[in-house]
Amino acid sequence: MTTSGQLILKKLVSIVGAEHVLLASTDDLSGYERDWRGRVRGKALAVVRPADTAQVSAVVSACLEAKKNGLSISIVPQGGNTGLVLGSVPDQSGQQVVLSLSRLNKVLAIDSANLTITVQAGCILQAIQQSADQAGFLFPLSLAAQGSCQIGGNLGTNAGGTQVLRYGNARDLCLGLEVVTAQGAIWSGLSGLRKDNTGYDLRHLFIGSEGTLGVITAATLKLFPKPLATLTAWAAVTSLDAALQLLGIAQKQLESGLTGFEVMGGFAVSLVAKHFPQQRIPLWQPDPILSERGYFVLLELADAESEQHARQRFESLMEQAFELGCVIDAVVAESLSQAQALWHVRESIPLAQVEEGLNIKHDISIPISSIPQFCASTDAQLQKAIPGVRLVNFGHMGDGNLHYNVQCPATGLYAQDAKGFLARYEEQVHSIVYDSVAQFGGSISAEHGIGALKRDALTHYKSPIAIELMRSIKKALDPIGLFNPGRVV
Amino acid sequence: MTTSGQLILKKLVSIVGAEHVLLASTDDLSGYERDWRGRVRGKALAVVRPADTAQVSAVVSACLEAKKNGLSISIVPQGGNTGLVLGSVPDQSGQQVVLSLSRLNKVLAIDSANLTITVQAGCILQAIQQSADQAGFLFPLSLAAQGSCQIGGNLGTNAGGTQVLRYGNARDLCLGLEVVTAQGAIWSGLSGLRKDNTGYDLRHLFIGSEGTLGVITAATLKLFPKPLATLTAWAAVTSLDAALQLLGIAQKQLESGLTGFEVMGGFAVSLVAKHFPQQRIPLWQPDPILSERGYFVLLELADAESEQHARQRFESLMEQAFELGCVIDAVVAESLSQAQALWHVRESIPLAQVEEGLNIKHDISIPISSIPQFCASTDAQLQKAIPGVRLVNFGHMGDGNLHYNVQCPATGLYAQDAKGFLARYEEQVHSIVYDSVAQFGGSISAEHGIGALKRDALTHYKSPIAIELMRSIKKALDPIGLFNPGRVV
Repeated sequence: MTTSGQLILKKLVSIVGAEHVLLASTDDLSGYERDWRGRVRGKALAVVRPADTAQVSAVVSACLEAKKNGLSISIVPQGGNTGLVLGSVPDQSGQQVVLSLSRLNKVLAIDSANLTITVQAGCILQAIQQSADQAGFLFPLSLAAQGSCQIGGNLGTNAGGTQVLRYGNARDLCLGLEVVTAQGAIWSGLSGLRKDNTGYDLRHLFIGSEGTLGVITAATLKLFPKPLATLTAWAAVTSLDAALQLLGIAQKQLESGLTGFEVMGGFAVSLVAKHFPQQRIPLWQPDPILSERGYFVLLELADAESEQHARQRFESLMEQAFELGCVIDAVVAESLSQAQALWHVRESIPLAQVEEGLNIKHDISIPISSIPQFCASTDAQLQKAIPGVRLVNFGHMGDGNLHYNVQCPATGLYAQDAKGFLARYEEQVHSIVYDSVAQFGGSISAEHGIGALKRDALTHYKSPIAIELMRSIKKALDPIGLFNPGRVV
Repeated sequence: MTTSGQLILKKLVSIVGAEHVLLASTDDLSGYERDWRGRVRGKALAVVRPADTAQVSAVVSACLEAKKNGLSISIVPQGGNTGLVLGSVPDQSGQQVVLSLSRLNKVLAIDSANLTITVQAGCILQAIQQSADQAGFLFPLSLAAQGSCQIGGNLGTNAGGTQVLRYGNARDLCLGLEVVTAQGAIWSGLSGLRKDNTGYDLRHLFIGSEGTLGVITAATLKLFPKPLATLTAWAAVTSLDAALQLLGIAQKQLESGLTGFEVMGGFAVSLVAKHFPQQRIPLWQPDPILSERGYFVLLELADAESEQHARQRFESLMEQAFELGCVIDAVVAESLSQAQALWHVRESIPLAQVEEGLNIKHDISIPISSIPQFCASTDAQLQKAIPGVRLVNFGHMGDGNLHYNVQCPATGLYAQDAKGFLARYEEQVHSIVYDSVAQFGGSISAEHGIGALKRDALTHYKSPIAIELMRSIKKALDPIGLFNPGRVV
């Protein structure tokens, strides 16, 4: 290591203490260097674990000074490192400092009358949910990684999840931020205000910028009254058009009571049935129509009055749905454990995919009205390119967000060789899907972000004007490229 | 006029046609040059009225080129010119082009299944509400100027209004934008997506930037199902603490059904009673407690089921409120016309103030939990500075937004000389109020924006780091200061 490399490490040790500067030579850095899905492992100069915002600021200032003095160094802010697009792991250079926010893990305040909770960036999402719950409120951000992801990362990537339909994305749940800038300054924007028109909205600029513009160190978040009852229903529909019709009447009848509307293709559900035969899947039978062309819909209703009232609303909805013919059959969970079992089927799809073998994943969004047409058109293009290809199509239909995954044909050359299938077709499949997304006015990244994984795709599919605006902003706020270079833009 | 001045006018005429370049020498420019409240009148080089986005782009490019060639010229984007902070009128220089969006007034598309409406920036807000209504939906942005303000201005200033509690500010209602940049390029970001994590959120950066970063030319907005019933109630409470308690139980019981929670100080209501004696004010009597220390609350409930259901919910709420003792008395409107009459009282407060004489206005927000304490503290400070001063305190309490206006004492030196009162006390009153706002973590502009009026105050009260970040962004996107110089930052 160069002398200036040694110097910066010494400086970092002086800021956070030796036990919080982790080095490959003495510590196991795999949890910081390897991405969540285990696809890549980078090589960090060091992992630094500051204790508070002042230390974050000092670390950034030290790295900035070193970089200005000619050292090739940069900072990768890292939360729970559960991202899916290679945005929070270091590259291979060995010149990146992983700035872990894990020790900034305190709930700073709960203001019941203002319906806000203020937390440090390193708080685990589930811990925030629990703090809110204990105070008698709901913090609705909810996603698969909630047991290990951190709120700073959720905000940095504008996380989505299962409650977006009612409560919005992570950015919609945030009223204020504290951020360390690329100059090492601390912007104290921890506002608990619902209205504040005093200049440009810096909060929304930092949210979703994936650690490339600043380091989020704390946030003030919205709380909501807890619903008195939550009910879950499961419906079988013959097509995406029918699912769309069901969504329309559910939105009208249940309005903001509708907190979830998840769609699952018959083939996606069949994988759960195949690999987890112990799971009871309602309305499931190896019916060729449902398993090949049909869909299941999981609906969730949160009610401010009572369970009885919630049941009446679901019944009234299903009556209309049967009348209109958009639902073949439906069940409403009778208990919490039944409701959990329904969600478990939905959440088991990614796991069933793992059992079935590697596939080509997408996290796309489409204007909701175009989802049936998009799927019909894209399915046909994929079938033409790869006869027999299988689509694991499921997602948050109420948000227009599909996890439209492509699995190799069940027979033929790649049936037993998913890796070979990926090597041969991944690029082509991405092109077909993303071209189709662009044609229907959709997004190539609905909730996962860009990171390093989709950076080239972003440049290809996003308008050049937008890319130019983003680069101007990056250059303005982080002129020497200190934060997370090679990510997003 | 200089030769280069003549040249740019000629160029503008060639872009939009002679009849759409208005000049002071031949046209009445007062509607474009004078601010909504009639306090200042600027002097425009010309008012330009492009027909479409391409013409907006050409106008911006022409001005940019002229400015690069040394002409002192800039652009003031203008919608309905109903702003309250001098953000949309030209300055006195005679060197600013007012870029009126009025002719871009088409509704471009309604997508029922996607719950979106796409409109040009010059659409009058009320026209958008009506288009939505005719299609069977609600577009909830609603404010006093809705008959003449334009959606481009609403987004440029992130307008608030009376439905923020349930539906959010203007920014929360916008999914996508089309913007002409300071380079004259057109960013086509008219997305109808509810999830899109592809880079920095340019939409939220342009929204609320008050025409200083780009010209909004079109937007895709959210639609909502129309509520089946809307009910309005009117409650008398003894204090702001009681109002706060009522808000808490209303949020818990009615959840997102609660669409309005407006608070009105007894003195504010007494002005309506005094100047508009024909208005029937429920629960009003010249009761010294209510008129001096009491408050009225206007609650609105939107229900997705039925009017009967809405009434039951209100009854249940009021029962609890009486039990807790936070409400003295309450009435629920029996008909639409009664509901309108209640809203009319609320909306008459600003008009009653005009009758009573000039006062010192504020548009502030405070964390909701701190409103009672803020008012107690600030009232006391004002009374100390100006004994007998009267507070016209009302606003959107559910959003933490108060229009906290200060009226001269009823007797004494300035009783008949409100102008003299303003000249003597305006600056001091602003200082007292804004210092107090800062102390309670509030905002000096909740929904009106900064414009030219509050620019100095912003520099004083906003954190220097935030100001620096804003200036960096302004410089990055509009390096030569073409758009609305002297506003915001």
